[in-house]
Amino acid sequence: MSVNTAIILAGGVGSRMGVDRPKQFLMVQDKPIISYCFDIFQKHSEIDNIVVVVSEQWQPFVEEHARKYGVDKIRGYAPAGKTRQHSIYNGLKCIDANCPGTDIVIIHDAARPLVSDEIISSCIQGAKDHDGAMPVITVKDTVYQSKDGEIIDCLLKRSELFAGQAPESFRFKRYYQIHNEVTDEEIGATAGSSEIAYRHGMEIRMVKGSERNLKITTIEDLETFESILKGGN
Amino acid sequence: MSVNTAIILAGGVGSRMGVDRPKQFLMVQDKPIISYCFDIFQKHSEIDNIVVVVSEQWQPFVEEHARKYGVDKIRGYAPAGKTRQHSIYNGLKCIDANCPGTDIVIIHDAARPLVSDEIISSCIQGAKDHDGAMPVITVKDTVYQSKDGEIIDCLLKRSELFAGQAPESFRFKRYYQIHNEVTDEEIGATAGSSEIAYRHGMEIRMVKGSERNLKITTIEDLETFESILKGGN
Repeated sequence: MSVNTAIILAGGVGSRMGVDRPKQFLMVQDKPIISYCFDIFQKHSEIDNIVVVVSEQWQPFVEEHARKYGVDKIRGYAPAGKTRQHSIYNGLKCIDANCPGTDIVIIHDAARPLVSDEIISSCIQGAKDHDGAMPVITVKDTVYQSKDGEIIDCLLKRSELFAGQAPESFRFKRYYQIHNEVTDEEIGATAGSSEIAYRHGMEIRMVKGSERNLKITTIEDLETFESILKGGN
Repeated sequence: MSVNTAIILAGGVGSRMGVDRPKQFLMVQDKPIISYCFDIFQKHSEIDNIVVVVSEQWQPFVEEHARKYGVDKIRGYAPAGKTRQHSIYNGLKCIDANCPGTDIVIIHDAARPLVSDEIISSCIQGAKDHDGAMPVITVKDTVYQSKDGEIIDCLLKRSELFAGQAPESFRFKRYYQIHNEVTDEEIGATAGSSEIAYRHGMEIRMVKGSERNLKITTIEDLETFESILKGGN
């Protein structure tokens, strides 16, 4: 049995929705979105620990709702970083300090409250069989590449394209070590949490994601989430 | 002034929606989707001619509705081909036979009834300034590339990725000539109508597309279209 620790990223403070708070803290049926996310990881039998990355300002709110909904796997809070990958690094440090023996880290976005148990399990399995795993779905767009943003260079092969989701999972020690060894600039320039892994030789397996595992970004996404909660989807 | 001829592609016979007819012939508010598309090209001051690619079986339906809604720019019908690009080639032959003096061809999908006048105009302008043009929108997904479909090779730079829409526009003579010169296999292997153009040296400019210019593929898309027609979006 491996020890599996989840990092829940809730450090974002902006909102593209023009509402009064970051999207992961919006209330849906009187419960913040992040709590739906906690529920899934709390109940999942393969998740041993949870670490939360959150800004100081929102930590009391998160702690209060964790208590309210009986989330007892939380082992620590880490401060939000200046980029998503810096936040992840803060979460990794928190695991190193508070979750001894962690074999696999599972990094999830608080704004993806519809992740399934199956996706979490297959991410854990993928990190056991390889060095890491990421759920993906097919890309529906016809995607062209243009280096200058004006003239088309080429059409990309749809069969080779995959849209990445969360959670991403990694063998903890190796992933943490990479972060300790690279420059701060490299961490800042990382656009996806798998990128820094495969760039440093980790083999990242793709596992089956789901259309339903959406990241709540727009009002429309929020409505979809509400509709799914009501059993309408 | 250039002579601009539109090809409306309505040759598809399948349906992913599980309904009784190809999606471009579905009735929305008692009017087939293709007729909404015709309306836009009929009214557009820069469009001189329309050529329709349609299967023999559906041609009478299209002709009847073209009469009913006063579409008098239609100069000819071409048979559907075995692939989308073969259908385009049939449309190009029809232009060569029936629309003398055509400078620019604008190729549109009958199932995109929400294209704007502005997009059509900028496609025409783009084909005048370059060799062709295609409307694009940004790609929202985080797109990874994997050659084997199992292990991630790389994360693609989002700033270099664009989702292609229709209509695509080309300088007619050169685009037609390419089709006359290449093998039937190459036409069949073409995944996007711009692909065969830039592969043979034509410079294709990207112009601003729109989220609204959706291709009706799913029941959800159909509902979005209906909602927009009702002014709900």
